[in-house]
Amino acid sequence: MSLTDLCKSACEAKYIVQNLSTDEKNRALLAVADALVDGKSKILSANEKDVANGHENGMHQGMIDRLTLDDKRIKAMAEGVREVAALPDPIGEVMDEFERPNGLKIRKVRVPLGVIGIIYESRPNVTADAFALTFKSGNAVILKGGSDAINSNIAITNIIRDALKSCGICETAVSLIEDTDRSVTKKFMTMNEYVDVLIPRGSAGLIRTVVENSTIPVIETGTGNCHIYVDKDADLDKAIPIIINAKTQRIGVCTAAESLIVHEDIRDTFLPLFSKAMKENKVEVRADEGSRSLIEGAVSATEEDFGKEYLDYIISVKTVKSVDEAIEHINRYNTHHSESIITGNEESAQRFLDRVDAACVYVNASTRFTDGFEFGFGAEIGISTQKLHARGPMGLKELTSYKYQIRGEGQIRG
Amino acid sequence: MSLTDLCKSACEAKYIVQNLSTDEKNRALLAVADALVDGKSKILSANEKDVANGHENGMHQGMIDRLTLDDKRIKAMAEGVREVAALPDPIGEVMDEFERPNGLKIRKVRVPLGVIGIIYESRPNVTADAFALTFKSGNAVILKGGSDAINSNIAITNIIRDALKSCGICETAVSLIEDTDRSVTKKFMTMNEYVDVLIPRGSAGLIRTVVENSTIPVIETGTGNCHIYVDKDADLDKAIPIIINAKTQRIGVCTAAESLIVHEDIRDTFLPLFSKAMKENKVEVRADEGSRSLIEGAVSATEEDFGKEYLDYIISVKTVKSVDEAIEHINRYNTHHSESIITGNEESAQRFLDRVDAACVYVNASTRFTDGFEFGFGAEIGISTQKLHARGPMGLKELTSYKYQIRGEGQIRG
Repeated sequence: MSLTDLCKSACEAKYIVQNLSTDEKNRALLAVADALVDGKSKILSANEKDVANGHENGMHQGMIDRLTLDDKRIKAMAEGVREVAALPDPIGEVMDEFERPNGLKIRKVRVPLGVIGIIYESRPNVTADAFALTFKSGNAVILKGGSDAINSNIAITNIIRDALKSCGICETAVSLIEDTDRSVTKKFMTMNEYVDVLIPRGSAGLIRTVVENSTIPVIETGTGNCHIYVDKDADLDKAIPIIINAKTQRIGVCTAAESLIVHEDIRDTFLPLFSKAMKENKVEVRADEGSRSLIEGAVSATEEDFGKEYLDYIISVKTVKSVDEAIEHINRYNTHHSESIITGNEESAQRFLDRVDAACVYVNASTRFTDGFEFGFGAEIGISTQKLHARGPMGLKELTSYKYQIRGEGQIRG
Repeated sequence: MSLTDLCKSACEAKYIVQNLSTDEKNRALLAVADALVDGKSKILSANEKDVANGHENGMHQGMIDRLTLDDKRIKAMAEGVREVAALPDPIGEVMDEFERPNGLKIRKVRVPLGVIGIIYESRPNVTADAFALTFKSGNAVILKGGSDAINSNIAITNIIRDALKSCGICETAVSLIEDTDRSVTKKFMTMNEYVDVLIPRGSAGLIRTVVENSTIPVIETGTGNCHIYVDKDADLDKAIPIIINAKTQRIGVCTAAESLIVHEDIRDTFLPLFSKAMKENKVEVRADEGSRSLIEGAVSATEEDFGKEYLDYIISVKTVKSVDEAIEHINRYNTHHSESIITGNEESAQRFLDRVDAACVYVNASTRFTDGFEFGFGAEIGISTQKLHARGPMGLKELTSYKYQIRGEGQIRG
C-alpha cells in the first residue's frame, strides 16, 4: 500500500474510532491484549530476526537489550494494554458550558485529535503501547518504528489489526509504515492533509529531525537537561539522597539530573558530602572554578558541559551567589523539562517555582518523578518539553482536542 | 538590529513580562492606549505614506480601505487596548491541584507561552491589537506585518515601546521586524530557539506559506469553507434568515457560509424560497444536478466549487439523501471551521454535533457567531482551525501554557 493510501485509510478510520463507545474500545483493547499473549510465538520469531540482524550490523549491547523481546516482555506489553482499557475514557467530557445573552447555548466537548503519527526508535513494545493510548483516546494512529525492529513491529501490528477485525472494528485504526526508507519517513512528515499531529519518541537527534522536517504540528518530547539547585537554606540531609536518586537511579532517561547548582554560602560544608556521594556512585564530576577544589577528582567544566544531557555517570557543577543566579543559569541552559530546588526557605522556593521555565518544577524532591504514572495519569505517551498543547507528562487527555457544540433557535448575527 | 538580536531581546523580555503583576500590565496597557491617541498625528502621517505607496503600486480599493487609518480608527485601536486591560488576567490560575500517595503536592498553574510571533497582512490595527492580547497574557511578542503597512506599523510600534518605557517596562516586550524582505520572514520562521509559537493572521496563502516553512509550532487560523445543512425536519422560516445572514452579512470573513446542503425530501418546497432569497441578495448560485432546476439562474457546481472558500456573493448547493450524507460531504470538503444544521429533529441535531469535524458546530444558528467576542471571551487573536493547543475562537487563555509546580519533603523515586 502506498504511503498516501495508508494515510487516507487512517483518515477514514478516525471517523469510526472517534464514535466508538467506551465499552467497544475497552472490549477491543482486552481482545488485543489476549491476542498479543496468544500470538507470542509469532512475535518472538519475528523478533529473533531483528536481533540477528542487529548482531550482524554490529548493534551495541544496550540497543540489543532494548530490542530483545521474551515471554515476560510480551506479557508486560499485554498487561500495559489491559491497564489502558481500565483507565477512564476522556472523550465526550463536557469541559465547559455557558449561555450567551442572545440565548446561544455553548458546550466545549472533549474530542479526539484525529490521526496521530508516532515516530519512534528501536523498542518494539512502543508499538502496542502507542496503539493502546491513541485508540483509547479515540484516535487512529500511524506508526513509524525504527528499521531495527521492523519484523517485530510488523508482527505486533498484524496481531493488533486481526484482533480489531475480530471485534468488528476497522483494522486501519492502526497502521504501520513498513517501508524503512528515509525518504518515506520524510514524506510522511508532510502529510498534513491526513495527519493531525506527529509525536516523535526517542533520541534528541530523532526529535530534531522531526521538528526540522515536519509540516504537521509536532509535540516535542523527551530531552532533559535537568538541574538540582542546592540553596543556602537547604537541608543537606535531604539534598544528598535527592541528588543520588536523580543522577543515578536510571542514567539513560530524560528525568535524570545532569547538573548540580550550589549556593556559594554552603559550598564548603556541602560539596565534600556531594563529592563523597558521587565517588561512591562512580559519577564523574565536571566542576566550575568555584567548586572544583572541593570535589575529589573533579575536572573543569566547559561552557558545553552546562548545556549537555549526558545520559551517563557524569554531572556538572555550577556555583552561584543567589537563587536568581541559579534561575538565570537554568533558564539559559535547560531543555524546559524538570528542575528542582532544595531549600527550607519558602521565599526562595516560590521564586524558583514561579521563575524557572520548565514543564515540571520541584521543591525538595527528585526530578525523577516527572512521569505520567507518578503523576497519577495512569499512562504516558511521552513528556512534552514544548509549551503548545501539552507540557510535561502526557496521558490520555493530552491526546485529545475539543470542539464547541452550539445550540440556537434561529439566531442570526446583527 | 539583526533578526537574531531582535529574537534574543524578545526572549530576554519574556522573563520580565511573565512576572509582571496584573496591575503593572493594566497600567502599561492604559498608558499605551493614551499614547496611541496622543500620537495620532505621527501615525496618520506614516499611514499616508503607506496609502500613497499603495496607490502607486496599483493596490485595489478594498485593500486601500483596510490599510487606511483615520481619527476614528485610531480611537478604536486605543479603545481595543483599553478593553483588553479590563479583561481578567489568565496568568497564575491554578488549573488543577492534587496530592500523590507519596506526599508530593502537584499544582498545574497557567503560565504564558513565552515569545509569540505574529505574521500578518495589511491591516495596521492588528499591530496594537496583537500587542495588547499577547502582553496581557504575559508574553513577549515579535510582529511581522505586511510590507504595505510598514510605515504605519513602525509608527504604532514605536509609540507602544515608548509608552512601555515610560512605565518602567522593557520596550523589547514588543518588537517589529522592519526588514520586509521575504528571506527575513523565512528565517524568522526557523527561530525555534527564541520563539515558542507562530500565529499567522491573513489570507489562506499566507497561512499555507507559514505552515510549510515554519519549524516553530504554528497555530493555523482563519480559513472557513462553512456549510449550512437544511435537514428534512427543518423549520424553513428559520432556515432562510440564517442562510442570508451567514452568506451575506459579511462576505469576506472566514465565518461566512460558502455552501448550502439540502435534504432531498424538502428540496421542492425549500429551494424556491432559497432561490428567491439569493436573488434578492444578489448571490450567484452554483448547484448540483439534484437542485439546479429549482433555483433560478443557477449554474452547474463543479467538484472544485464544493472545496472553495469564495469570500464573495456566491454559494454552492449540494443535495443529500440523509444527515449522514451531509456529514460525510462536510467532513470531505470543509476546513474544520464552522458548520450548521437547521433541524427540528433532536436525533439529527445530536448526530451532526457529534460527527461533523469542525471547531464550532451549530444547531439552528448562523455560522457567523464563531468569534471571541460573541463567545464572551472579550477578545480574539484569531480562530484556530487546527486541533492542537486551541480550536475555534482564541482569546487570552488560548495564548497561555501551563507548568507543574511540585512540592515535596525529600521524596526520591523507588
